[in-house]
Amino acid sequence: MLDISEIFNAAAVLKGVARKTDIIPAPKLTSDCQLYLKTENLQLTGSFKLRGAYYKISQLSDEEKARGVIACSAGNHAQGVALGATHNGIKALICLPAGAPISKVEATKGYGAEVCLVPGVYDDAYAKAIELQKERGYTLVHPFDDEKVIAGQGTIGLEILEQLPDVEAVVVPIGGGGLISGVAFAIKTLRPDVKVYGVQAAGAPSMERSVHEGHPVHLDSVSTIADGIAVKEPGTNTYELCKKYVDEIVTVNDDETAAAILALMERQKVVAEGAGAVAVAAVMFHKLPVEGKKVVCLVSGGNIDVNTLNRVITRGLAKSGRNFTFIIELYDKPGQLSGVLHAIADQGANVISVTHERLNANTEINGCSIRLELETRDPAHIDQIRKALTDAGFHVLN
Amino acid sequence: MLDISEIFNAAAVLKGVARKTDIIPAPKLTSDCQLYLKTENLQLTGSFKLRGAYYKISQLSDEEKARGVIACSAGNHAQGVALGATHNGIKALICLPAGAPISKVEATKGYGAEVCLVPGVYDDAYAKAIELQKERGYTLVHPFDDEKVIAGQGTIGLEILEQLPDVEAVVVPIGGGGLISGVAFAIKTLRPDVKVYGVQAAGAPSMERSVHEGHPVHLDSVSTIADGIAVKEPGTNTYELCKKYVDEIVTVNDDETAAAILALMERQKVVAEGAGAVAVAAVMFHKLPVEGKKVVCLVSGGNIDVNTLNRVITRGLAKSGRNFTFIIELYDKPGQLSGVLHAIADQGANVISVTHERLNANTEINGCSIRLELETRDPAHIDQIRKALTDAGFHVLN
Repeated sequence: MLDISEIFNAAAVLKGVARKTDIIPAPKLTSDCQLYLKTENLQLTGSFKLRGAYYKISQLSDEEKARGVIACSAGNHAQGVALGATHNGIKALICLPAGAPISKVEATKGYGAEVCLVPGVYDDAYAKAIELQKERGYTLVHPFDDEKVIAGQGTIGLEILEQLPDVEAVVVPIGGGGLISGVAFAIKTLRPDVKVYGVQAAGAPSMERSVHEGHPVHLDSVSTIADGIAVKEPGTNTYELCKKYVDEIVTVNDDETAAAILALMERQKVVAEGAGAVAVAAVMFHKLPVEGKKVVCLVSGGNIDVNTLNRVITRGLAKSGRNFTFIIELYDKPGQLSGVLHAIADQGANVISVTHERLNANTEINGCSIRLELETRDPAHIDQIRKALTDAGFHVLN
Repeated sequence: MLDISEIFNAAAVLKGVARKTDIIPAPKLTSDCQLYLKTENLQLTGSFKLRGAYYKISQLSDEEKARGVIACSAGNHAQGVALGATHNGIKALICLPAGAPISKVEATKGYGAEVCLVPGVYDDAYAKAIELQKERGYTLVHPFDDEKVIAGQGTIGLEILEQLPDVEAVVVPIGGGGLISGVAFAIKTLRPDVKVYGVQAAGAPSMERSVHEGHPVHLDSVSTIADGIAVKEPGTNTYELCKKYVDEIVTVNDDETAAAILALMERQKVVAEGAGAVAVAAVMFHKLPVEGKKVVCLVSGGNIDVNTLNRVITRGLAKSGRNFTFIIELYDKPGQLSGVLHAIADQGANVISVTHERLNANTEINGCSIRLELETRDPAHIDQIRKALTDAGFHVLN
């Protein structure tokens, strides 16, 4: 049974190891409530996972420590275990699927772990980890369904209560449920008046469905840009703790998560991964009864691939009218393209790319079309450019 | 004459107004020194400018306050003055060039200032501000060459000494010099053993040249992605303070600044604008004698346009081999494109876009070419894909 003294103990052990991450006001993300961010994306290793992994490892017996630990993860847990083991001076072996991004493999090695690349997908890597655990006597560090791990994550709850004593609600991402179990247990034990809400990706609602149906549910497939919380089934411990201590669980879709990632970058100047942004998305998109309240959203991690981030930004820009591609029909004679560009320059838009196409089923035989990608100010600016092009006699096809 | 007691006074006035921003360890940005970031990009308004502007405004006489303040800026200073005035309950008028990005205009209005859009460029807006100041008796809040403003920025120096008492060197961006003047004065007064280094953009080295030549230099033109420090001439006060208190001034070019922006996002999970990233760039690219030292880089602001950020990321990805566009010659017959895509899929690269071009001066009359934009892992991965394409009989044109 988890006890609050275990969480205080974890806090003492983590002192000087995990950063006490800052709580930052975020008035520009919403005017519905007084919103604050607990910035675990600025934690060492880029996520909260270090806390649970480090505490778990620190509590092993000398014999267990001598044998070392093993974990299976392509993400934040791998880095948390690697750094946690290195700090404790013990050996860590991390099993990863062979297709894992090089950057994650390198980061894990960089924290001092040995990496075992297993052909296949996550499940194959997990099977290999179990096999090696039995063969060599390593201790498996579970990513969420372990009381010590949960106690480590719970230290975030203690910090929130200390850093913002008049907090009224805390919003926490849920994957397997380790983070929210620890945070909710700590907060509800010490301050039962504070609400604790959980957020899952709509494409991976395992805990939400489990709590709703009254037993742990196994999802056949999960799909979300919030890959850090794409978990098919909650843990036994985490399910029980969520059922008991979490006030409500809601879901957000990928578009909402992407909008939250962009807003966090643009307005709060911090980088969040998908899983790290779902709590903010839930508040931004009014999924929770927090109006007028003092609310902390836990931004759990920032380990997003830059290529993915680039696509999130591009999509967000398009959605908010700050990037638009016009397709314009032209007669195939000199001066046409120049005329179009002149009209656009007059409207103060910035041209990013031009593609000139001659043969196209949609254009006349002696015509051609151009695709113009523009940086624009907002949807009204796009309308204004469209009007200027039409007024100048050009035919906009989209 | 600036006095250290003025900076302590500013710190007292700013308490509860400006955030005491966190200092974050940044071991992944360099192994040359023990690097820390003072995260003023996470300050309210997204930059340190709030400090100086607020303190200046707080020290006006009741009569001056009743008349209100005026400033000319398209950037961080505008937002700092706007919020500073609103907090002090007085009126602020901000002159902006009419072409200023809508997002900045809206942000400035959002902090409660009245905005005056002046046709023309920055100099026209400045002339208008001077005119209105005289006509209506507003107090002009200078962006850097003002002792109260400098004292406000100096509070960052006090915080660094308190937050990291064993710091050995502090690296600070320089535009007009207000920030570094305050920080260097505070640090050298209290802890003369701590080095203070300044960094300018190579395309706007006004203070570096001034200190080198022994008098304030006026540059005819400036050009840099670090628009927040693109200043043609230092102030009289800031020049004297830099000459006296700054140990060395170096410059970084735009590519180095862009690499620092990308590294800050990817490894430290924070968003910096160009001006905010130059101190980090100077350390990353070995411009300063800080080896083995405990160093704080001041990340002065995070107000970067998302379109610009998108371009910085795209360029950074290309430079590090994580994005590549192949141009491949094909015969114009069925199955060719499919063959290319098959070869690429085998190598585990992700296709972002495909452009198929039939007529092209560089291809044979019955040939065509395709442009394939790919997400790749690193330069070696690109070579491997190139080899696979060549081995499969395709002709790579670039």
